[in-house]
Amino acid sequence: MDRAEKPLSKSTAYRGSILNLRIDKVETPAGRRAIREVVEHAPAVAVLPVTDDGKILLIRQYRYAARRDLLEIPAGLVEPGEDFERCAERELQEEIGFFPGKLRKIGTVYNSPGFCTETVTIYLGTDLKPSKLAPDDDEFIETVPAPAGEIRGMIERGEITDGKTFAALTWYLAFECR
Amino acid sequence: MDRAEKPLSKSTAYRGSILNLRIDKVETPAGRRAIREVVEHAPAVAVLPVTDDGKILLIRQYRYAARRDLLEIPAGLVEPGEDFERCAERELQEEIGFFPGKLRKIGTVYNSPGFCTETVTIYLGTDLKPSKLAPDDDEFIETVPAPAGEIRGMIERGEITDGKTFAALTWYLAFECR
Repeated sequence: MDRAEKPLSKSTAYRGSILNLRIDKVETPAGRRAIREVVEHAPAVAVLPVTDDGKILLIRQYRYAARRDLLEIPAGLVEPGEDFERCAERELQEEIGFFPGKLRKIGTVYNSPGFCTETVTIYLGTDLKPSKLAPDDDEFIETVPAPAGEIRGMIERGEITDGKTFAALTWYLAFECR
Repeated sequence: MDRAEKPLSKSTAYRGSILNLRIDKVETPAGRRAIREVVEHAPAVAVLPVTDDGKILLIRQYRYAARRDLLEIPAGLVEPGEDFERCAERELQEEIGFFPGKLRKIGTVYNSPGFCTETVTIYLGTDLKPSKLAPDDDEFIETVPAPAGEIRGMIERGEITDGKTFAALTWYLAFECR
């Protein structure tokens, strides 16, 4: 069954620094005309960093869109032309001051496929070595080490409210802590 | 440590049908001025529907922003004033034709807290009874039943590329399939 919607026209309503907004006219498989609002956004990478002694290194940072501090795994946007694993290594050094000797891909997912092109590719980062890169100017980030044994309770108590972090931590419980 | 960014001005650059785009000027905790692009989006609910005989009812649907069919759990946007659990019941009946006798909250997460206000509240839906509501006009949805025993392999093979679905399924493996 072909469910693809055929674009009839595309127009960019806003061109910004981290996103563009596009308004497309499409034809649905049933032959109807419809409008699709699409946020174009660069791909992101995220790393679930686990220390040799079984601690998960989360970060706490303020998120303006959420108007609150969130507990997250380190993540960032892939720069044009940048290799995804090099980006993951860079973000980890900028945000928590460690270089991951080993990166293993957990998965790639769309965050909001209903309107946004953004994907996040999540890695497990282990064999961590201290290595600091200067963080972005306007990032105020605190590292929060969490023993692996506390993750289950944090999820049950609703303390993990970032989607990629929830996905990475439940993956870790299901695949690495059996 | 107060990391909150203080809004100095807010302006709506685009007002659409499923989202608004706001461009805010803020002051960071370091006293710097910065621009924040914020996509305002209604909250969503999603349901992981599990049948009495242990099948998970996924759906396959075309996502224009991703330009492909994705395998997802049923989900939809909460209408203004609508109760989240009533919305979850409505979406399940519209998308797969079942009413969930039991809903249990798995969690609420931000999909893209870097720029978007959208949250998704994920429920486990069980005690499913056949009950069909007419789907939205422009939704072409196919139900894909997956035995719980196949979920682990689907994740390992990279077949789950929707964030909320990845989160719900890995939660299920970690908390319900022990």
